[in-house]
Amino acid sequence: MTDLNDPLLDRLARFDGFAKQTPYLTDPELKRSRKVCPSLEEAIRRSGLRDGMTISFHHAFREGDKTINTVVDLLARMGFRDLTLAPSSLLNCNAPLIEHIRNGVISRIYTSGMRGKLAEAISHGLMRHPVNIHSHGGRVKLIQDGELTIDVAFLGVSTSDCFGNANGISGRSRCGSLGYAKVDARHAGTVILLAEEIVPFPNAPASISQDEVDWVVKVDQIGDPSKISVGAARITSNPRELLIARLSAEVMVHSGYFEQGFSLQTGSGASSTAATRFLEGYMRKKGITASFALGGITGGIVDLHRKGLIERVIDTQSFDGDAAESLRTSPNHIEISTNEYANPGSKGAYVDQMDLVILSALEIDLDFNVNVITGSDGVMRGASGGHSDVAAAANLSIVVAPLIRSRIPTVVRRVTTVVTPGECIGVLVTDHGIAVNPRRPEVAQRLKDAGLPLMTIGELQARADSITGEPRPIEFLDKLVGVIRYRDGSVIDAVRQVKG
Amino acid sequence: MTDLNDPLLDRLARFDGFAKQTPYLTDPELKRSRKVCPSLEEAIRRSGLRDGMTISFHHAFREGDKTINTVVDLLARMGFRDLTLAPSSLLNCNAPLIEHIRNGVISRIYTSGMRGKLAEAISHGLMRHPVNIHSHGGRVKLIQDGELTIDVAFLGVSTSDCFGNANGISGRSRCGSLGYAKVDARHAGTVILLAEEIVPFPNAPASISQDEVDWVVKVDQIGDPSKISVGAARITSNPRELLIARLSAEVMVHSGYFEQGFSLQTGSGASSTAATRFLEGYMRKKGITASFALGGITGGIVDLHRKGLIERVIDTQSFDGDAAESLRTSPNHIEISTNEYANPGSKGAYVDQMDLVILSALEIDLDFNVNVITGSDGVMRGASGGHSDVAAAANLSIVVAPLIRSRIPTVVRRVTTVVTPGECIGVLVTDHGIAVNPRRPEVAQRLKDAGLPLMTIGELQARADSITGEPRPIEFLDKLVGVIRYRDGSVIDAVRQVKG
Repeated sequence: MTDLNDPLLDRLARFDGFAKQTPYLTDPELKRSRKVCPSLEEAIRRSGLRDGMTISFHHAFREGDKTINTVVDLLARMGFRDLTLAPSSLLNCNAPLIEHIRNGVISRIYTSGMRGKLAEAISHGLMRHPVNIHSHGGRVKLIQDGELTIDVAFLGVSTSDCFGNANGISGRSRCGSLGYAKVDARHAGTVILLAEEIVPFPNAPASISQDEVDWVVKVDQIGDPSKISVGAARITSNPRELLIARLSAEVMVHSGYFEQGFSLQTGSGASSTAATRFLEGYMRKKGITASFALGGITGGIVDLHRKGLIERVIDTQSFDGDAAESLRTSPNHIEISTNEYANPGSKGAYVDQMDLVILSALEIDLDFNVNVITGSDGVMRGASGGHSDVAAAANLSIVVAPLIRSRIPTVVRRVTTVVTPGECIGVLVTDHGIAVNPRRPEVAQRLKDAGLPLMTIGELQARADSITGEPRPIEFLDKLVGVIRYRDGSVIDAVRQVKG
Repeated sequence: MTDLNDPLLDRLARFDGFAKQTPYLTDPELKRSRKVCPSLEEAIRRSGLRDGMTISFHHAFREGDKTINTVVDLLARMGFRDLTLAPSSLLNCNAPLIEHIRNGVISRIYTSGMRGKLAEAISHGLMRHPVNIHSHGGRVKLIQDGELTIDVAFLGVSTSDCFGNANGISGRSRCGSLGYAKVDARHAGTVILLAEEIVPFPNAPASISQDEVDWVVKVDQIGDPSKISVGAARITSNPRELLIARLSAEVMVHSGYFEQGFSLQTGSGASSTAATRFLEGYMRKKGITASFALGGITGGIVDLHRKGLIERVIDTQSFDGDAAESLRTSPNHIEISTNEYANPGSKGAYVDQMDLVILSALEIDLDFNVNVITGSDGVMRGASGGHSDVAAAANLSIVVAPLIRSRIPTVVRRVTTVVTPGECIGVLVTDHGIAVNPRRPEVAQRLKDAGLPLMTIGELQARADSITGEPRPIEFLDKLVGVIRYRDGSVIDAVRQVKG
C-alpha cells in the first residue's frame, strides 16, 4: 500500500469500505431479494411516485390487458393526482379510466391510439389537455428528446426472477414480444415489474434485464392472451376483403421489389393477413424467399416462416398466440424494441430496411394522406401505431381499404385527420381498383405492364361519392382534444371536440 | 385536417415533410447502407474524433487482439494527439502503444490491467498522468458517473450486417461474448464497428444492435482467437496446482453454500480451472446441480454445462474457443454486458446473486487484502478484472495461490498494492494449508468439522518467510504511475514509479 497524500488524487474519494455505496451487500438475504415487494402498493410506495409525475405501461395484451386499469385504480385509491398517463397505446378495455380522468387522477395522456367509450368521452371534451397521439417510433423519439419523461413504468410480464430478468414467452399469460416494454425499461426513472410468476434466478431469455428493473411484484394476472387478437387480426372469408387481399398481393409481386431476399410488413388487418397467404403462392412460383418480416407479427407471417419462406421474423409486438409461440421456439424469430423497430431518432430503425408494407386506412384522400385515428363522425377510434413510421421508410407503402364501409366512403377529398402524409404512400388498393401515387410513376408503369386495373385516386373518390353521395362535413367545436404528433415529434394535425 | 393556429400548439414544431429529420430516407440506397464506410480512415473522419477525446476498445481477444494497435497506429498517422485510451483492458500484445504514448498520441489511460513491456514502461514512469486501474464493474460505474466519457468506441466484431447488428459467435475470428463491447456500444457518443465480415441484413443474434451503431467498416482481421487463452486458462498437471485445486474444491463443498442450485465463478487460473473438474465428482456424489456459472467462462465450465451439471452459463467474456462455441450453440449459455455482470451502480449485477467464487492473487496479506496488479518488484503486471467485483458480492470468496512463487512469498505482511480489500475475502487456499478470514468463523467451523487442514494466515506468512527469508522492501520513487480505483470509483490504493 502506498501513501495516498498526493495532489493528483485530491479530487477523488477515498475507499471507505466495500459496501459504502452498496449497503445491501452486507446482508446475504437482502443482496438477493431486495427488489421483491410484498404488494403492488408497497412497490408504488418504494418507487417514489408523486403527484404530477408520468407513468407508463405497454399494451401488448391489447383488449386483454389487465395491468393498466388495475394500477390506475390502485393509484386512485392511494390518492395520487394529476398524473400523466403514457402507455404505448389504449384500447376499448380502458374505458374504466374515464372515471379517473374525471376525478383528476389522470390529467394528461400520451398514447398511440384509443378506442371505445374512453375515446368517445375524450372526443367529446372529457380532458382539459388534448391527448398527444404518437406513432410507435415517435413515442421513443418523444422520450429520447425529453418531452416525455417516464417517472415510473409499470410493466406486466408473464415471468420474472427475483432480480427482474423477465420475458413474455414463458409462464401462463404470454403476450410474446415485449417490444414496447423494453423501451420503458430502458428509459423510465423507476421500473416496476408486475409478474404473474416469479421463477428461479436466472430467468432466460431476459427480454427485460435485471439491470433495468427496480422492483418486482407478483400479481394474479397481467392480461388475457386470448383477447390480444380481438378486433385486430382475424382470418377473413369476406369476398371483398379477399379481393383486396389478392390485388394487394399482385401489387407486391409486380412492384419491382418482389425479389429474392425482399422484406415485408403486413400488420394485422384482415385484408393484409389474407394477402400474406396469397403471397405464399407467388413466392413459391418465383422460387424466392423473404429475408425478414417485420412489425406486429401474426400467425400468417409465422406460417410462412415455418415453411421456410421468411428467413427471420422481427417482432416488436406479437398479434396472436401463434406469434408468441414462434417467438418462444424459433431462434430466427427475434424480439426487438420499438426503438429498434421504428424510432426515427435511433441510430438505426428496422423500418429503414423495409421493402414492402401493407397498411390500413380509415380514410385516404386525393393527396394520399391517410387517417387512421378519427372515424367519419370525427370521433377518435383508432391508433397511429407504426403506420407513419413504416410508410416513411419502406420502399413501397401499399394502403388497402374497401372503397366504402357501411355506406361511408373511405376515399375522400380531404381526410378528417392526417396521420401519415400522402408523400409516403405509394399505392392504394381498393375493391374497386388500384390507384398509384403520381409520385411513383415507375411503380404505376410496372403495375400497368402486369395488367392490373389502375385508376386515379380522383376516379376512385368520384366513384365512392357516386355510390354514397358526398358525405356531410363533420361539425367540430373549437376545443382541441387530440394533437397528432408526426414520428419526428412535429405536429402534423390536430383533432377538435365533436359537436353534440 | 384542422387549423393548427391554437395557443396550445404554440411551442410545438409543425410538420415539414416526412424526411425533415431523416434526409437519408429520400435516397433508397443511402437508407440501407448509410453506415458502411469504405475505410477505417473514413469511419474515423465521420466519427468526429478530435484531439483530447476518449477512445475505447474491448479486449475479448486478449493476447490475440488486432484492433487496438491497428486503430491507434492509424490515429497516429492521421495526426491525432492527446487522446485518452479507455479499453476494457490491455495485455502483452499492446507493447506497440509505448511509441504512441511517447509521441503524445495517447496521454491518459483507463484500463483494468496491463502486462509486458507496456506495463514495464508505465511502471518506470513513461506517462505524465497515472493510469487509472478499474475493475470490470467499476469501469461501467466510471462511465455511468460521467468520469469516463467515451467519445468514439472502436469495436471489433466477427460479423455485422450493413446496419450494425453484430456478434462475436459467427464468422471467422470468434471471440464469443461481447460483454465489454455491449457497454461501449450503449454509452459511446459514436460507435464504429470493425467487422471481419459484412453479412446480409438482418444479422442475428445481435449482441450489439443497429440502434447503437453509427458506422460499420470491413477490416481484414480483428483478432486471433487462438491467442485468447494464452497466459490465462490452461489445463494443469502441476502437482502443486492440483493440490490447491483439490483443496479449494473441498472448501467449496464444505463451505455451507454447496447446495442444490448453488452458483459459482471460477475464472481462468490453472488451479481454479482444475478445481472445476474436481467439483464435478462432488456434485455427482451429492446429486446436485448448479443454477448458473458466471464470469469469464472456460471450457471447464462449459464441460459441466454440457453434462447438465450447470444449468445456465452467464458469459461476459469467453476465455477460450469452447466457451465461444457453447455461447453459439447452447440456448442456456447467455451473453451479458459488464453492466449486468458487475457494475455496483447498475440496477442489478449478477455478482450479487453469486455463492462461491475462486479468485487468484499475486499477493495476499495478513488482513486478507489481495494484490492482483503489481509484481514483487513493484512493476504492474496484472489486471484488476472482476476480482474486487465478485469478491464484494459473492457469499464466499476463496483465494487460491501457491504459498511461494519462484522463491517469492505470495502470503505477505502487507501487500504492495491493494486491489481487493480483505473484508471481502473468506478463505485462502495454498499448497501449505488453508486460512479462513476471522470475519467468517462459521465457515472456519464448517471446514474444521470437515477435517480440512486450517492454519491462521499469520502461520502461512511465517512459513513462507521461513522458506524464502523475509522479502526486501521494494524501492519506489514519488511519482504516481497508477491509481487503483475501487469498483465504486473511490481510490483504494496507488502505484508509484519503481526505482531503477
